[in-house]
Order: sequence, then structure tokens, then C-alpha cells
Amino acid sequence: MDIIDIKTYMQSIGREARSASRLIATAETAAKNQALTLMAMAIKRDEQELLAANERDVESAKARGLDAALIDRLTLTSKGIAGMAEGLLQIAALADPIGEISDLSFRPTGIQVGKMRVPLGVVGIIYEARPNVTADAAGLCLKAGNAAILRGGSEAIHSNQAIAACVKEGLKAAGLPETAIQVIETTDRAAVGELITMKEFVDVIVPRGGKGLIERISDEARIPVIKHLHGVCHVYIDDGADLDKAIRVADNAKTQRYGTCNTMETLLVHEAIARKVLPPLCKIYLDKGVELRGDALSRAIVAQMNEATEEDWHTEYLAPILSVRVVSGLDQAIEHIAVYGSQHTDSIITEDYSRARRFLREVDSSSVMVNASTRFADGFEYGLGAEIGISTDKIHARGPVGLEGLTSQKFIVLGDGHIRQ
Amino acid sequence: MDIIDIKTYMQSIGREARSASRLIATAETAAKNQALTLMAMAIKRDEQELLAANERDVESAKARGLDAALIDRLTLTSKGIAGMAEGLLQIAALADPIGEISDLSFRPTGIQVGKMRVPLGVVGIIYEARPNVTADAAGLCLKAGNAAILRGGSEAIHSNQAIAACVKEGLKAAGLPETAIQVIETTDRAAVGELITMKEFVDVIVPRGGKGLIERISDEARIPVIKHLHGVCHVYIDDGADLDKAIRVADNAKTQRYGTCNTMETLLVHEAIARKVLPPLCKIYLDKGVELRGDALSRAIVAQMNEATEEDWHTEYLAPILSVRVVSGLDQAIEHIAVYGSQHTDSIITEDYSRARRFLREVDSSSVMVNASTRFADGFEYGLGAEIGISTDKIHARGPVGLEGLTSQKFIVLGDGHIRQ
Repeated sequence: MDIIDIKTYMQSIGREARSASRLIATAETAAKNQALTLMAMAIKRDEQELLAANERDVESAKARGLDAALIDRLTLTSKGIAGMAEGLLQIAALADPIGEISDLSFRPTGIQVGKMRVPLGVVGIIYEARPNVTADAAGLCLKAGNAAILRGGSEAIHSNQAIAACVKEGLKAAGLPETAIQVIETTDRAAVGELITMKEFVDVIVPRGGKGLIERISDEARIPVIKHLHGVCHVYIDDGADLDKAIRVADNAKTQRYGTCNTMETLLVHEAIARKVLPPLCKIYLDKGVELRGDALSRAIVAQMNEATEEDWHTEYLAPILSVRVVSGLDQAIEHIAVYGSQHTDSIITEDYSRARRFLREVDSSSVMVNASTRFADGFEYGLGAEIGISTDKIHARGPVGLEGLTSQKFIVLGDGHIRQ
Repeated sequence: MDIIDIKTYMQSIGREARSASRLIATAETAAKNQALTLMAMAIKRDEQELLAANERDVESAKARGLDAALIDRLTLTSKGIAGMAEGLLQIAALADPIGEISDLSFRPTGIQVGKMRVPLGVVGIIYEARPNVTADAAGLCLKAGNAAILRGGSEAIHSNQAIAACVKEGLKAAGLPETAIQVIETTDRAAVGELITMKEFVDVIVPRGGKGLIERISDEARIPVIKHLHGVCHVYIDDGADLDKAIRVADNAKTQRYGTCNTMETLLVHEAIARKVLPPLCKIYLDKGVELRGDALSRAIVAQMNEATEEDWHTEYLAPILSVRVVSGLDQAIEHIAVYGSQHTDSIITEDYSRARRFLREVDSSSVMVNASTRFADGFEYGLGAEIGISTDKIHARGPVGLEGLTSQKFIVLGDGHIRQ
């Protein structure tokens, strides 16, 4: 397709989505759950077809010499396919957020005013070469009553089309419009440019992927974006910390998984407790092969540390590397997080009531924790059921975004012929 | 100032706001309320100075031949000044939303997860020649723990500076940073261009004013915008309506005030009740000097109607003009509202339970009503205390935006050394 065709194609996708969104917004809960269940069954049934389609994508990615991490994310396994199906069934089991009425109360004029939860409309999702996002995003958008337009990474095009076929089958069999979930069939980048500027057809864009992708989309979009930037997460070990809890949490926050956005990247330690906590904790890190990069005070305590540069404090390693800084106290810890953090997830380890209270209030991140591992910052762990990403934005949705983040609320007013005086 | 100076000036304003926002975010409720009270006292005390400053603006606007409606909005009176002060005292009396913790509950892992309400950070407000917005916006932003950058219409520059002096006096006397509320001192339009693109310093933009202003800002902004577009509001009189309630509400929705965004612009009437309801209702409108523009069916019932054009159905008159259409039933009414409405406020008049339920669910507007006048769509009437505008957006805030719309929520996690397995 050339650029003019792309524009026509995307406009047609958009028009179909807008039209489907009106039907899906008022679809019965049972129909949505049936569609989700049938999608899951189709995905399990078509395991071999999905693996074959994915094989084509993986071969092509290898032939093009793409890097191992991308190929790892791209590759579907039997277990991954079962996980996709399971995810859809879990979404079916969640309560339907749509139509929920809250805060309905009488006003002095006699009218009753409340809020009703409603879908956003049409959600555009742009992601990289992770085929499982196709099923997750389709499921969440559908349950929240939205139509969705999905644009996955071009490397996963065959995998995504195969998953899309299962999604459409589920929608159709449940009597819902197949156009409620559309997967863009072109790998042309111009399609993204159209998607993020079709104001009349798309209500919100959710980009999932690396910092570069998300910044480019935020810059060029003409539609609100719910974005998930990087996670430079901190654990601050206060001098009021329980030593065992400090070591347990700081170990888990770094080493339970290295490549996730809620993994700790910088450890801050109060100077009064540094000599007690750093030697045993750093031994754990070093034994697990974590490279340590410290400031002068930390290096004076633990010799096997490289020197941390200014850049280290800003860096999301997503790797077995940790920067370590000894701070003079809570003020300096909060200041460090404000300057270098990414407002994602930060945790204080302390038994001190007043400092825990201050940290909770003053740290301006999407998740703020006391005596818990940053690795808990996750939709499943928070009880949201599933998540479409972790928003580092401040407006609309902050932190893990589940079904509720894909909805809005309208005001409802119930009167009995009431007029305004 | 030339363009380079404007950029430097706005960057400096932005930096100050960002810095003040961190202090104001954790300011004590009592200090914020004290500042609001002192601002109100300063405004009342300086009535003569405010009137004199406003006189300069009004003279200048008249000399430039600006239209009467603008001069009307621009003009401050003693009553208007008392109203500004009263508004600030009302905001002081509202509960402080900041720090409110909700939904704190235990997860199976043992952690407690909840949400804490937090400020947005720095709010940029762009408005036209209404000096009272300076006080309202300053008060709401402050109470919600935000720093604000206010850019009022250039016609009101002297009035706004005089109000700003009272605002700063209140902040200072309460021990809060004066830079928490900054009023831009240049009338150069380039300042708006800077304000809506300074991502690092501004978290959200709230434009208040005409459709042209708001569309231009939405198009050019690089920061999320909470916007208030026009209101093409409908009342649909169903054939299950109580005739007295229908006439009372439809009269009030149009004629209580003509120039407000929640005024009805189009009346839809079920064909089965049209011959009963239109003659007495239209007599009321005609007696009050409302021009009626109807479709063929309406005109067959009421002779004193002009012909409604396609454009009429899209039009927010803000004037004593009403378009009238006879529809075949609820489906056509909902369809008309979907095609021609602006998703602001729409009301059904009916005693029929099932149709009321469908209208509430299916009409996708920021306020949907049953048997109540559209004129109720208002922050004060809804019990929000005050409003910074009525959002027709779907994300973040929809409908009247009060203190809550100027805040966000972060997740908080309380553990006891919990780690993720």
C-alpha cells in the first residue's frame, strides 16, 4: 500500500471501530464473557497454527539478524499460548465494570446525582513484537466495553494475524461485531501515524514498548495517550529499618527479575545503618552476579563496587546492575528520588512511623511502598485482575492500568420534573 | 518582549512553578485554607483598586471597538468582586482532597494496597477576558495542592494583575510560596505557545473559553488538556412523559438562561405525544421571545416555526433560539443525540422505567438525566463545591470538574518485609 492507500485503509478501520464501539458499549456482560471464553478455546485449539505462524515470524527475524532479546519476546511456546488463553478466561471472570453506578445521592434541590462507569470508546494500542499483547489487549478492551485497534510490531505480523483470527471467531460466535477488535494488517509505519491522529475515530492511545517508541508516539499523537515510561525504581533503607526485612526486600526488589520495569535500579541507604546493612546485602548481590556501582561512601564500605557516574542514577538497567548511594537521611533520599527517579515505584524500609508517613506522602510516584518489594507494582498483585500497562502519567490512570483505566465515568441525574431555580 | 525573551520568561515561570508545586503538594490543609481566606479578605479590601484596574481594561477594550458581549464579561462590578471573595471562602470550606486514602485492603500475599489522592503538579489555565476566573482557578488549584500558571485574556491584563496581587498576598501571609500561583504578565500570544509545550514544567492544561480557543490549544499542546468544548444539549420528551413535567423541564432547560453551555439547544419530541405537548410548550417559548426552528413534522403542529436546516441540529445557539424535531421514538432520539450532540448534557422526560434505563445507559454524554433540566449540569448543583469547567473529554475527568478533577491517585503499598515470590 502507498501512503494514500494507508490513509484510506486506516480511515476505514477507524470508521468501523467507531461504529462497533457503540454496539460493544452496551453489550450484555454475558455476551462479552462468552466471546472471551470462545477466544480462549479457539487459541487453545489452534495451538499448532499459532506456533507455525510464529515460526514464520521468528525465522524472518533471525534472517534479518534481529537481536536475541527481541527474538525471545517474539517467540511463542505452548506454555505461552496456554497463558494467553488463561489470561482471557481470567478477564472473563472479572466483574464487568460497565454500568456500575456510584456515589448516587440526593442534593438539596431534590435531584439525585451519581456517576455511571462507561467505556472510553475506541482504544488504539501500539506495541512491539510481543504476540501475547494481542490477546491481552483485545480481552481487556472488550471487557471494558471498548472497540480496539491493535498495531503490533511488524516482526510479529503472522503471529498477530493468527491470534486475531481466534479473537474474531470468539466475537462472531458470541453475536458481537467482529470489527470490535481490529488488528492492523499492514506493517507500514505510516499506519501508526494515521492511528495516533484520527481524532474522530480514536479516543485514547496506549503505547506499550521501549522508551523510544513511547516518546515518539507521545510527541506525534493528537489523541490522549496513556503511557508507560521507564522505571527507575528505588528502595531506601532508613536507619529505622529492621535489618532482616531490609535485606530480604532489597534482595527481592533487585534479583527476583532483572528485566521488569518495577525492578529496583538504585539502592539508597541511610549513613547510620550503611555499615551494618551493606556488607551482607552486597554479598548476596555479588554472589548472584549483580554488578554494583556506588558513590564514594558506599565504595568505602564495600570494596567490590565500581564508581557510579551521574548517568547511573538516571539509568533503568533492566539488567543485573545496581547503583548504590549512601544518603544522610530521609530528606536526601526523597530529594534523590525526586531528581533521578521516574515516578514509577519507590519503597522505604523502616519501622519508624513518622518517616514512613512522610515517605508515603512526599514521594510523587505511581506506587509508593513501605516495607515491601517494588516488584509488587503489578496489576495482578494489586488485585486489578490484569493490566494493560503501568502508567507513569498523572492524569486519568496512574500505576497499573486494568479494566478501570480503560473506562470513564459520566454523571447521571435522576429527577422528578426538577427545574433549576 | 521578543520571542526569545518570551521563551526565557516562560521557562523561568515554569521552573518556579515546578519548584513551588513540590512545596504546595504537602502544604498543611490549614495553611491552604488560611491563604484562601486571606486572598478573599484582600480582594474585598482592595475593591476600589480592582474596580480602577478593571476600568482601564474596559476603557481600552471600548477604544478598540471590541464587542459588547466581551466587554460585558470583562466588566467587574462590586457584586462580582464580592462573588470572587465568596468563591474563595467556599473553596476554603471544602474538604481537602489531598492525602485521602481509599480502597486500602489486604491482598492474598499479605500486602495492603490502596490509593492516595495526590495533586497533579503544575496546572496551566488559559482563559478569555473573564477576570473572575483568575480568582476561581487560583483557589481551586491551590486547594488541590497544585501550582498554577494563569494566562488570562490580554483584554483583562490590568484586572488580572490586581487580582494576582491579592492572591500573592494571601499565599505569602500564610507562609506558602508566592510562586505557587503565577499570572503571566505579558499579553504576547507566544507565551501561550510556550505554556502548552513546556512538558517538563506543566502537567496539565485547562483551557476555558470559546470553541476556537480550545480547538487551537488542543491541536498545539504537547501536554494533556482537560477541555470543555461546546454544549449542544438535548431534551427528549418521550411518549411516556408526564405532560406537566415535560413542559416544566423543557421550558426551564431553554429559558432559565440562554447563554450557558448546559442550556438545551434542541428539543426532541416523540410523535405520539407531539400534538399534546408542542402547542402549549411552544406558546411559552414564543411568549418569551424564543425563535423556533423545526422539522416538517413540528412545523405541521406549530405554525410559528422557521425551518430547521441541517446546520441547526449541530448548533450551540447560546441565544433564544431552539431547534425542534419530532422523532419516531427512543431509538431515533438516541441516534439524533449521537449524531448531532456534543456529549455534554442530555435529558429524557419519561415515566417509563425501561426507556429511562436505556437512555441513561446508551446516551454517551458527560451528564445524562431523567426528568430533570439540563441546567443542573454544574459543579455547584452536583455538590462538587466549585468547578473549573465542564469537561467533554472522556479521559481523566468528565462533566463538571471540581477539586477531584485537579488531582490524581497514586497506589500505596504497606508491607512488613513482604517480597514477591
